Amino acid sequence: MTDTVISSASKEIVIGFDRPFVMIGERINPTGRKLLAEEMKNGDFSRVEADALSQVAAGAHMLDVNAGIPLADEPALLCEVIRLVQSVTDVPLSIDSSIIEALEAGIAAYEGKPLINSVTGELEVMERVLPLVAKSGAAVVAISNDETGISEDPDVRFEVAKRIVSVANDFGIPTADVIVDPLVMPIGAMGNAGQQVFRLVRRLREELGVNTTCGASNVSFGLPNRHAITGTFLAMAVGAGMTSAIMNPLHSEVKSAVMGADVLMGNDQNCANWISIHRDPDATPSGRGGRRNRRRGPTQETV
Amino acid sequence: MTDTVISSASKEIVIGFDRPFVMIGERINPTGRKLLAEEMKNGDFSRVEADALSQVAAGAHMLDVNAGIPLADEPALLCEVIRLVQSVTDVPLSIDSSIIEALEAGIAAYEGKPLINSVTGELEVMERVLPLVAKSGAAVVAISNDETGISEDPDVRFEVAKRIVSVANDFGIPTADVIVDPLVMPIGAMGNAGQQVFRLVRRLREELGVNTTCGASNVSFGLPNRHAITGTFLAMAVGAGMTSAIMNPLHSEVKSAVMGADVLMGNDQNCANWISIHRDPDATPSGRGGRRNRRRGPTQETV
Repeated sequence: MTDTVISSASKEIVIGFDRPFVMIGERINPTGRKLLAEEMKNGDFSRVEADALSQVAAGAHMLDVNAGIPLADEPALLCEVIRLVQSVTDVPLSIDSSIIEALEAGIAAYEGKPLINSVTGELEVMERVLPLVAKSGAAVVAISNDETGISEDPDVRFEVAKRIVSVANDFGIPTADVIVDPLVMPIGAMGNAGQQVFRLVRRLREELGVNTTCGASNVSFGLPNRHAITGTFLAMAVGAGMTSAIMNPLHSEVKSAVMGADVLMGNDQNCANWISIHRDPDATPSGRGGRRNRRRGPTQETV
Repeated sequence: MTDTVISSASKEIVIGFDRPFVMIGERINPTGRKLLAEEMKNGDFSRVEADALSQVAAGAHMLDVNAGIPLADEPALLCEVIRLVQSVTDVPLSIDSSIIEALEAGIAAYEGKPLINSVTGELEVMERVLPLVAKSGAAVVAISNDETGISEDPDVRFEVAKRIVSVANDFGIPTADVIVDPLVMPIGAMGNAGQQVFRLVRRLREELGVNTTCGASNVSFGLPNRHAITGTFLAMAVGAGMTSAIMNPLHSEVKSAVMGADVLMGNDQNCANWISIHRDPDATPSGRGGRRNRRRGPTQETV
């Protein structure tokens, strides 16, 4: 039983075993989104605001925020994004950058206890990021690669994760504040990518006792009907013990698979969230605003 | 590595570990289908034929056939259904009855090596069904309940399954010809039904070395958007090691989840089946008839 608590100024989210899966909205990220990158660079954050609101309305429990734009002032941009998103939503944030100065500035601008995304098993990266995490009392995403790259052997990736947790502990960060990302590769390019992750997630949970997360969309890269693959992957990952993911809750196949997996793991008490979103498709998973004027019964087989 | 071979006169299907999941079409069953029951009783098998063809077109690798209609001559009806279905399709069948005379008649009418559905762990049932299975060289579905009913403890259900396999072996039936049904309860009524099955399937595979199947639709009974729950359940069951299910391949969410799970387990070589059905929505999963005139690229994120 490992609970990772992340908070905003007014709201706590707990990522943990035997709890509903935590959906971390992936959209506020200019990587591969030319128009968004251009707008952000020009100080136009209207799309960031819209993406924050729409993801929360779709059920995101947290939002990942990234401002990595080439040749832009990433620390300043990231602060602006954090302040804006915290002014329009109350969900906790994952502060996403590979630049230490951006993480520092982002943490300073953030109200609450954020999730820092991310640290790797590279010694130099751990020595820069983990003191910052420890000092700010944040939680951190630990990506299971090191100086030698991403191993294709899930047991090697397990050892890398174990080492990051151990070093984090040395810096005074409790194990519960380290969320391991086992690294999800595109299944179209590597046929055993799914099995690797399922095996690794199970070991991380059972042997290392840590929560897990991943960038889910990557698994379906290059495949047709990719949201169905991403959703199916997430359901299977939940079955293997994964407790959160950075994902797109606006894709109905993905959201439905995650919420269905919560039902099937017994983590949606009395199927209340599942029933709630099907009473009112606009309701958020917590059931807020669940009007009952569109109640639907189960499908009946009659012929 | 346990391979269960089922055959028709001209076609073999292998249910096994690390192979594509075997979809057994559930539709040819008058239980809860008043109109079909009425028609079958009156000698009208047009809907049976249509159900056979549509399920195979949708990708069913096998078909379950059941003729259990109160006050009807079940052995005679079952024979008619089997002969008809074998005349219009080449997929192997699962002969489904709780009446020993119907199973006997069905086996006699069947061309190939059928799957007999089912035997339970009740001593009397085993002593009637297993000699028939042994004599005909068929495979059999073993349902993990006994005289005491269905245990809520998956470890008890494991012991029941183990006993059926042992008794089957005593009758000369190889373990590979026993496919265990762990019994799937409605998740809306029993919140731990999913976890129970996943745990049991894993043990059945790892410790008993048997293939598994289930009546998948039952899991979502009474819930809204139930096909999404059934599909998500099946994907998670595949992740836990399940190798076949009696299910409805006409429900796109269910079929998509199973085929996606094959991709994610690395059992759809080069994602060929997945890509094939998305090139041509009418193509069967084996890729037969996969025209390439509707090729679609992956979804691209552009803004």
